[in-house]
Amino acid sequence: MKEIAIGIDIGGTNTVLGIVDREGNILAENDVRTKEFPDVNDFIEVLHKTIKETLTTLKEQVEPMGIGIGAPNANYYRGTIEHAPNLVWKGIIPLKEMMEKYFEFPIVVTNDANAAAMGEMIYGGAKKMKNFIVYTLGTGLGSGIVINGEVLYGYSGFAGEIGHIIMVPGGRDCGCGRKGCTENYVSATGLCRTMTELLGERMGKSELRKINFEDLTSKMIAKAAESGDKIAQEAFDETARMLALSIVNTVAFSSPEAIFLFGGLAQAGDLIFSPTQKYIDEFIQVVFKDTVKLLPSQIKESKAAVLGASALVWNELSRRKTI
Amino acid sequence: MKEIAIGIDIGGTNTVLGIVDREGNILAENDVRTKEFPDVNDFIEVLHKTIKETLTTLKEQVEPMGIGIGAPNANYYRGTIEHAPNLVWKGIIPLKEMMEKYFEFPIVVTNDANAAAMGEMIYGGAKKMKNFIVYTLGTGLGSGIVINGEVLYGYSGFAGEIGHIIMVPGGRDCGCGRKGCTENYVSATGLCRTMTELLGERMGKSELRKINFEDLTSKMIAKAAESGDKIAQEAFDETARMLALSIVNTVAFSSPEAIFLFGGLAQAGDLIFSPTQKYIDEFIQVVFKDTVKLLPSQIKESKAAVLGASALVWNELSRRKTI
Repeated sequence: MKEIAIGIDIGGTNTVLGIVDREGNILAENDVRTKEFPDVNDFIEVLHKTIKETLTTLKEQVEPMGIGIGAPNANYYRGTIEHAPNLVWKGIIPLKEMMEKYFEFPIVVTNDANAAAMGEMIYGGAKKMKNFIVYTLGTGLGSGIVINGEVLYGYSGFAGEIGHIIMVPGGRDCGCGRKGCTENYVSATGLCRTMTELLGERMGKSELRKINFEDLTSKMIAKAAESGDKIAQEAFDETARMLALSIVNTVAFSSPEAIFLFGGLAQAGDLIFSPTQKYIDEFIQVVFKDTVKLLPSQIKESKAAVLGASALVWNELSRRKTI
Repeated sequence: MKEIAIGIDIGGTNTVLGIVDREGNILAENDVRTKEFPDVNDFIEVLHKTIKETLTTLKEQVEPMGIGIGAPNANYYRGTIEHAPNLVWKGIIPLKEMMEKYFEFPIVVTNDANAAAMGEMIYGGAKKMKNFIVYTLGTGLGSGIVINGEVLYGYSGFAGEIGHIIMVPGGRDCGCGRKGCTENYVSATGLCRTMTELLGERMGKSELRKINFEDLTSKMIAKAAESGDKIAQEAFDETARMLALSIVNTVAFSSPEAIFLFGGLAQAGDLIFSPTQKYIDEFIQVVFKDTVKLLPSQIKESKAAVLGASALVWNELSRRKTI
């Protein structure tokens, strides 16, 4: 029988689940509309049913080895979702405990960025690495830190919040209620904020002067930069400079073998990779020179959430073997 | 027979060695004048003799379990000292390999700050902790990071350089050739630099206006602050603010259970602890509130180097048992 893992990505609107084999092939996918279940008990009942149904659609016989769940504000130690602002369920949800009533195999819960790091280690570009970090450059900045082959959870279970390291004391307002956190500079949103500041600061022409702040996207800025818009190019350069500074500081702390860039902004390719590498080389401390690689994630964006969640299972099983 | 570890602290001027039991009692001490041996081969020969002699002075029969060495610019993986600016031996010194010619038991090499963290874990205030960090506030800022019960070395072996995280881009000149690194604000030297800047900035009276920059010490500033010197008090407050910012960012990264302060500046007691705690409470992200303790090191300053080095041995032995 083929061993499979069930990967589940819980999002505010939709929950996606996939049946994944050891090689990272998604054998079947399905989804549940998160928003339609204001009571989490109802959600879990339907999720259970959907998993059962999806398993029966498979042509070959499989043996489920576990369920991995990526969810916002998830705590690995407690198996909970805690005060997630984007979910309909408020307070602390004992997700793992609730799922265990329906399933007999191991259930692992963690946040999205940690799941992404696991996906990179099990199926992606970090297969042979023990120390690496994934920067998820989306609306915010997520990070999954792997040290000695293990995701870093720390004492509280919430470690790995590089996006909320304060880079500019008293700087840009942050969603966390403080100011100057890294994600306000280094993310798709950060790029838009930098572009907007520069539109005020510079006098040059830019096609983006016709776009209001609410409509502005990182893709528009990438397109403008590629067609020669000097201000858009400067916005990318400044974002890369802040990203490089964050990476150099991360290297001083934990000295990873590689930093993987993932998410919307990472897809801007050379526009972001080339200046970031240039600034890393400029800023890095001599002792760390050439010890760290800057790499694009090897996991497809559209499959990352389910793959990352399923990777949690394989990792958990190999951990239990060693203990 | 009593099991003992040999702890060695290699400094630029002097090398101290101690015979230490499992409880952290130093049974005997000795030293070798590092500076008098421009050839490292001669140094190791004399160090070997001195260890043998010191062991024979003991009244009880002992069984040496290993040698732990704390040294500047040491690399744990390679067992080397690499380009240490304060030592007479230049280039890369294969210390572990050279020592192994003389001794048959395990030899562990690491830098001073990592040894201090080990000392805290084996004999000090971190006995039951798996995730903690020691900040060594001396001339510079050293840091030893323990994650899941292991010192963090990272891919390169040089991880744990919180002192060289850039806090103020374009800020104060740093000995590493860059600008704005944490240790230029958060250390005994950092406090003196802050005091000196404030003497230029403020108009108020201060007895320290009579002291030139080269003679100024953190102890003088502590004494002045205690006797009501407003500028000296502000220098401590500003140093504490920067320390708290560094700690809060560290917590976002690795979420330790405790931060231990060690070294000269930590001995200023309430002058540094009380404002640092106040700023931590002010700056910390909600999710980490009350998850981290700020504590004074429980290792005596004068014994720390030898104890820390000897602790490497006990830790290495327990690691080998688990593997």
